[in-house]
Amino acid sequence: MVVGVTSSPEILPVDGIRLATAESGIRYADRDDTVLVELAEGSTVAAVFTQNVFCAAPVHVAKAHLQEATPRYLLINSGNANAGTGSQGMQAAQRSCEIVAEATGARAVEVLPFSTGVIGEQLPAEKFAASMPRLLESLSAHKWLAAAQGIMTTDTVPKVFSTRFEVDGRQVTITGISKGAGMICPNMATMLAYVATDAAIDAPLLDELLRGAVERSFNSITVDGDTSTNDSCVLMATGKSGAVVNDGAVRELFAHQLDGIMRQLAQAIIRDAEGITKFITLHVVQAADEQQAKTVAYTVAHSPLVKTAFFASDANWGRILAAVGRAPVEGLDVSRIGIALDEVDIVKGGEPAPDYNEDKGAEVMAREEITVTISLGLGEAQARVWTSDLSHDYVSINADYRS
Amino acid sequence: MVVGVTSSPEILPVDGIRLATAESGIRYADRDDTVLVELAEGSTVAAVFTQNVFCAAPVHVAKAHLQEATPRYLLINSGNANAGTGSQGMQAAQRSCEIVAEATGARAVEVLPFSTGVIGEQLPAEKFAASMPRLLESLSAHKWLAAAQGIMTTDTVPKVFSTRFEVDGRQVTITGISKGAGMICPNMATMLAYVATDAAIDAPLLDELLRGAVERSFNSITVDGDTSTNDSCVLMATGKSGAVVNDGAVRELFAHQLDGIMRQLAQAIIRDAEGITKFITLHVVQAADEQQAKTVAYTVAHSPLVKTAFFASDANWGRILAAVGRAPVEGLDVSRIGIALDEVDIVKGGEPAPDYNEDKGAEVMAREEITVTISLGLGEAQARVWTSDLSHDYVSINADYRS
Repeated sequence: MVVGVTSSPEILPVDGIRLATAESGIRYADRDDTVLVELAEGSTVAAVFTQNVFCAAPVHVAKAHLQEATPRYLLINSGNANAGTGSQGMQAAQRSCEIVAEATGARAVEVLPFSTGVIGEQLPAEKFAASMPRLLESLSAHKWLAAAQGIMTTDTVPKVFSTRFEVDGRQVTITGISKGAGMICPNMATMLAYVATDAAIDAPLLDELLRGAVERSFNSITVDGDTSTNDSCVLMATGKSGAVVNDGAVRELFAHQLDGIMRQLAQAIIRDAEGITKFITLHVVQAADEQQAKTVAYTVAHSPLVKTAFFASDANWGRILAAVGRAPVEGLDVSRIGIALDEVDIVKGGEPAPDYNEDKGAEVMAREEITVTISLGLGEAQARVWTSDLSHDYVSINADYRS
Repeated sequence: MVVGVTSSPEILPVDGIRLATAESGIRYADRDDTVLVELAEGSTVAAVFTQNVFCAAPVHVAKAHLQEATPRYLLINSGNANAGTGSQGMQAAQRSCEIVAEATGARAVEVLPFSTGVIGEQLPAEKFAASMPRLLESLSAHKWLAAAQGIMTTDTVPKVFSTRFEVDGRQVTITGISKGAGMICPNMATMLAYVATDAAIDAPLLDELLRGAVERSFNSITVDGDTSTNDSCVLMATGKSGAVVNDGAVRELFAHQLDGIMRQLAQAIIRDAEGITKFITLHVVQAADEQQAKTVAYTVAHSPLVKTAFFASDANWGRILAAVGRAPVEGLDVSRIGIALDEVDIVKGGEPAPDYNEDKGAEVMAREEITVTISLGLGEAQARVWTSDLSHDYVSINADYRS
């Protein structure tokens, strides 16, 4: 199932970005598995990649190409992650870029490759050559939804969000797509996101904006704590709107809008997480610093006992309290801990709240979206992390995926 | 289900230790929920407790008492963890010790209290008073199995192991019991272990021996990464055999035998883990140091994707490789990584092993006990961690427990 909203009602094109999709037959039958994104000349690009030390071949190649040139094309395939594929995999990733270069006249270093899908199978890169004519013919500014569908693996819905706002009297658009399948999905690798704007933003600032927004979006979600070999997030700025984002209030405004789009794209991955029945916000407040808040939030979010309790709609505060207590942070004091589920206080001072009863807990636990507020009583910092519950369907999807 | 052996065929009494059980009606109906352990005068005692900063009231009291006196009695109850119970819980733990003191003539500080069961409910300590006459009447050296049953919560089998060996011409016995319910069990708190020997061992050495053995046993198992508020492990030495353990070869021999008992007790907790269908040994070799090996082993052991793959009998090396890659250690190099399932090499140099095929993987994955050997190619250190798979029954047990 899907909990909540995973797309904007209206998807806005971004001037300077064209997209196309094609069926290359990488793995899936009867669906587009290849996406080409074309960036107008003069665009700037920033990207962040997985922290997993065993990153996939396309991640190595994309990082290297980004250091040498400004990208003109992104080539993304689903169905095969090109991870755990050694030197042959590196050649396939390089070859993918050459195929795009040969067909477009761009240089190979101006192409970034991305792959998501099964780990450990060699990517048949030559198949992209046959798709290139169709991809180039059909490039269009209006293919964001098709692109979102083309990068899906075990995702059940495409994820696309758009926003439009005014900067110095000019309309600026941000549109982005993401895919996850809830987490690092089973043997699929995994989280991809592409966000574009028609604002003009120089490369260093674009990088800074992207890193800040990622920290509050894709780095604040978790399904099962696994990080994939292929996770990538790309931010592109074409400048075609004529609006320039540099510093001051304009930067603030743009960062705020970017945060909103990236948070929605990240949350959409959780909303479509494997086996999800509840969308859970862990909000840790009164922490000594933001890192402490985030560590506590993640420790609770990763606890299988907490996640199964949410699946069971059981307001099991003992499991939450025990998870907080084993968080690898200094200075926790049980007598200061408070826990609330939405508006219902369940723990105060490390003990059951005096006016709490199981009926109140049951009522709030019946909801599809629940905010757990954990108050540490140590300071004024806070952090939010979003996660899903742990259900029978999670086990089924992850146990049955390759069989 | 239970995978493998969880008790010795013969349970040996330990001279100087007597045990008794009674039904105090703490939570369970129609079963003994209270265990009294009596130690002969002159015994030494060492103990280690949970690292969870929110430890339960009995843990606080037991730690304080251990600093003031050498214990003569342990009082253990199941059904109520006396955790998350504030100052009233502290009073109940103290009162439990006073009740034993009043009935036996020992001082209250010579009694250690232990509780395991539901978190957040007040412990009705006065109920122990009614059980004391029956407990004292029935103290016996032969009640180890009954004691193992008395401390069970959601465990499905009692866990008892014994060994006997010769030291300087004298027979030395080690016998121990443990309980877990597979992990920190749902809202139950959780891992308890009591091991006794009739060797004479001074307190500092006993402490050292216990900490070493715990590191290679209870600190090398995991079901779901949660550590409980009540975890405790006690090692008692009565000296009644006349054999003295101090240093040199005798110490080596005793440590080896103690390791064996504690490893079996710890493994028994995994063998009876909630929802287990497979007993998995993660053996990380060629690590730079032992800490690195253990961190990698735990990261893989905690991965829900790896655990569901084992449940599905899917030799999904991509998930194992991805989990190794996100382990928080320095210096990993994918081109040196090897992974084997029992005798079958599945990854060499970070890629599928040349002679590996799915049939070989399926054959080894059909086994109930599987060793995953992960070779880092960085050094000569190694570590083993034991865990279970993640099954539908795990979700059912933990989702349904309070409903």
